[in-house]
Amino acid sequence: MSIRIGILGHGNLGRGVECAVMQNKDMELAGIFTRRDPADVSPLTDGARVYPSDKLADFKDKIDVLILCGGSATDLPLQTPEYAKMFNVIDSFDTHANIPDHFAKVDKSAKENGKTAIISVGWDPGMFSLNRLYANAILTDGKDYTFWGKGVSQGHSDAVRRVEGVADAKQYTVPVKSSLDAVRNGENPELSTREKHTRECFVVAKDGADKAKIENDIKTMPNYFSDYDTTVNFIDAEELRKNHSGIPHGGFVIRSGKTGMNGEHNHIIEYSLKLDSNPEFTACVLVAYARAAYRLSKEGSAGCKTVFDIAPAYLSALSGEELRKNLL
Amino acid sequence: MSIRIGILGHGNLGRGVECAVMQNKDMELAGIFTRRDPADVSPLTDGARVYPSDKLADFKDKIDVLILCGGSATDLPLQTPEYAKMFNVIDSFDTHANIPDHFAKVDKSAKENGKTAIISVGWDPGMFSLNRLYANAILTDGKDYTFWGKGVSQGHSDAVRRVEGVADAKQYTVPVKSSLDAVRNGENPELSTREKHTRECFVVAKDGADKAKIENDIKTMPNYFSDYDTTVNFIDAEELRKNHSGIPHGGFVIRSGKTGMNGEHNHIIEYSLKLDSNPEFTACVLVAYARAAYRLSKEGSAGCKTVFDIAPAYLSALSGEELRKNLL
Repeated sequence: MSIRIGILGHGNLGRGVECAVMQNKDMELAGIFTRRDPADVSPLTDGARVYPSDKLADFKDKIDVLILCGGSATDLPLQTPEYAKMFNVIDSFDTHANIPDHFAKVDKSAKENGKTAIISVGWDPGMFSLNRLYANAILTDGKDYTFWGKGVSQGHSDAVRRVEGVADAKQYTVPVKSSLDAVRNGENPELSTREKHTRECFVVAKDGADKAKIENDIKTMPNYFSDYDTTVNFIDAEELRKNHSGIPHGGFVIRSGKTGMNGEHNHIIEYSLKLDSNPEFTACVLVAYARAAYRLSKEGSAGCKTVFDIAPAYLSALSGEELRKNLL
Repeated sequence: MSIRIGILGHGNLGRGVECAVMQNKDMELAGIFTRRDPADVSPLTDGARVYPSDKLADFKDKIDVLILCGGSATDLPLQTPEYAKMFNVIDSFDTHANIPDHFAKVDKSAKENGKTAIISVGWDPGMFSLNRLYANAILTDGKDYTFWGKGVSQGHSDAVRRVEGVADAKQYTVPVKSSLDAVRNGENPELSTREKHTRECFVVAKDGADKAKIENDIKTMPNYFSDYDTTVNFIDAEELRKNHSGIPHGGFVIRSGKTGMNGEHNHIIEYSLKLDSNPEFTACVLVAYARAAYRLSKEGSAGCKTVFDIAPAYLSALSGEELRKNLL
């Protein structure tokens, strides 16, 4: 029997989940749920049904895992604990500082209702977190580095768009190559914010806007840009559409550590991602963990979990025998 | 209470485990066991005791996890099923083709005796396997690549040493950079054996030996060298000692995959290791999984497992709360 997946929210991430479900033969789409008018939502797949989110309770026995595709700022803090009362749920909650609080709320709700919940699934948090954990457990005497990019930061792009005189904009976060190379060489550098990443902005100015002022306003913006070396490129709307409409991202998790009686041997563990589509890749991770949630729920394992708590074999459609034979 | 680790076998790997136990504050060394005369074994750590391996039965209640540091050809196929009758055990069994058979034997023995066994722990099999599994579960439509090196291959070095006229030798396996770059660029090349790796030999010839014949004998050796582009460098014993006495290794696991309604987005997941000491790094992985075996045993989880079956959190000395706060 297929694993029946429900999708709540049909933005970039929800559409990515719709694609990912199609790629997994042991899954089927039970429905797309939206807070908008369902008539305004266009599914990507033939035959996919769209329902208003307030009808979710009717699907209690028709959905094995509900994947929550809302945002971490306001949607997920409410939705995940709420829907964990009725469904096994997965989210991609990514506000690192609030994870302990979110975990506690979801855990309580899921345990009280005998459901399995997995939070903070994606690539960071998610695959990057896993790699930090594995590398730390193996190389106990070492140093961690995470670099992001080259990729589009939605938050920074939004910040640029709010600058007076800006019609539209995209911001790329770019790791500083010389710092990345120093880390890979085992030099264990101490890196300031400025030394780790640069920021590249592609800006469409409104007609008659003061470009020098826009550039200065961006570069001096506290929190977002003032601690970085920022480049501002003015382009026209057509070029923005043609060359900057994608949502690529990626990054690097590196741990450098020492072994030997006198720490004489150095080791570098590196994990990297180069993603053409940030939301579609995140969706693929969500769907793999939905398989895990389904199986854990069948085993009666209730409560909130993270990627740290889930044995890798639960993610794969292959059996233990097949995994040992083909991938070990 | 500390986790009490026993080490069976005190070659390069056993010595690496001895170092690794020292780096982990929640562990202590219960003893080193050897088939040699204990007087011939020199522990690295002050106060470490060496015992003959036939006394292991006396340590049934004094060792929480026994780490088996023998070879995969003849030692582990017998030792792991045998010692899983008395101890929780970890091995680094790496003969990929025989893993299913080894698993079955160890599983039977461990289950019958209520012990936890984890086999094929290290970096390949081990961390590389994990990365193959995660990447396959996430990118279901994709292609896998594993490259090894640059690093010393013990088996190939031994093969060169058996060539007539060779006094000593080291062999390095080296990934072909252009192929690695093509994979990283998402070109999904079909690569022959020759296109993936080259082999570099550093050879000390015996006095008066025919070097041209040695070079030809190496390059045409079936299985080991004839399918590769091989370089043979003749050096003297002093240079071999000075520049080629280390045991570095490493490699790359890459999965390239597609997402989107028409496979229009490409993604690259890459995991790489650059290791100054192959046995010391392998030892660190063994010790992290020994912690997992100890915990699983406490939970009553008997039988044979691999890295696929173990939730990452079991490897870390940190609590779930600490992991979620600091590494997620």
